[in-house]
Amino acid sequence: MSAVDTNLGADFGAGLSADDFKLAFRNHAAGVAVITADVGDGPVAMTATSVFSVSAEPPLLVFSISDMSSSTPTIEQAKTVVVHLLEAEQYPLAKLGATHGVDRFADTTQWTRLPTGEVVFPAAHAWIRGEIVQRTRAGQSILVTVHALEAKLPDPADAAAPLVYYNRQWHALTEQSRLG
Amino acid sequence: MSAVDTNLGADFGAGLSADDFKLAFRNHAAGVAVITADVGDGPVAMTATSVFSVSAEPPLLVFSISDMSSSTPTIEQAKTVVVHLLEAEQYPLAKLGATHGVDRFADTTQWTRLPTGEVVFPAAHAWIRGEIVQRTRAGQSILVTVHALEAKLPDPADAAAPLVYYNRQWHALTEQSRLG
Repeated sequence: MSAVDTNLGADFGAGLSADDFKLAFRNHAAGVAVITADVGDGPVAMTATSVFSVSAEPPLLVFSISDMSSSTPTIEQAKTVVVHLLEAEQYPLAKLGATHGVDRFADTTQWTRLPTGEVVFPAAHAWIRGEIVQRTRAGQSILVTVHALEAKLPDPADAAAPLVYYNRQWHALTEQSRLG
Repeated sequence: MSAVDTNLGADFGAGLSADDFKLAFRNHAAGVAVITADVGDGPVAMTATSVFSVSAEPPLLVFSISDMSSSTPTIEQAKTVVVHLLEAEQYPLAKLGATHGVDRFADTTQWTRLPTGEVVFPAAHAWIRGEIVQRTRAGQSILVTVHALEAKLPDPADAAAPLVYYNRQWHALTEQSRLG
């Protein structure tokens, strides 16, 4: 598959300014994931707040990668990725994947490789290994669609406290944050 | 533009089961939006937890619509949509857009039309009006990419309490849910 299958990068008329667009999204929260990939020249890991489930059958998820991310060139070339869906406990991992200029794999006790070769962080309560089935250029980012192949599932008995990000802050959802 | 520009609906090898895929995503939270559209035969409104910002310049956002949603045939044909990004206060609106078999526009005091014709719910703290620039079939859903044209921006002076959804429950993010 080519690095980008379809292109939506160029010709738009006048739209909302970048500042207004960011402000409109200021209060929109998102779940947090760390995505890993490796094309043979060393693994990459990036924190993403754009992961969502698109279809359960076939099982497809989507995320976007910005041209500004150091992990993007690798994810552009990768055949497979691992998407770690994080709980509040894994907040240090989320911060690691969002910190510039550090070796995100320096602590070799924190990660391992699957039999299929991909890098995983076992601390994550849930992860999905999948094949990239489409890449779509969209402005300064690429939308990546992934077909889920394999997963580590969360323990249904565990009390869940999902990790959430908004407006540059990290939050944990608990019974206290629940409405109604 | 055709209803669906690119197709990713069919041929995948064996993947994760639908049940396991849903379980993996169980603890993944999402911000909440209500999307409205109208192609001339009456407005539709649907609650979506798949909205994310893809690119600020040009300003592009993405969401997905399931084949099972009653609003999908209209959004498939629409040229423009309004994406309302909700705070906890607008929780009744989110429930309205997620309730089957009700007339979501019965209370005519809750909505109005923009000069450009689209339906908006003014109670939302922020909304974005945009043009649909791409539709991509992905399994049982369609990925919709929107170029933002106009917005109602949140008041930066307002204390924000974003509305979040996970595992069939609604949550509000506040200072109490903050980590670190």
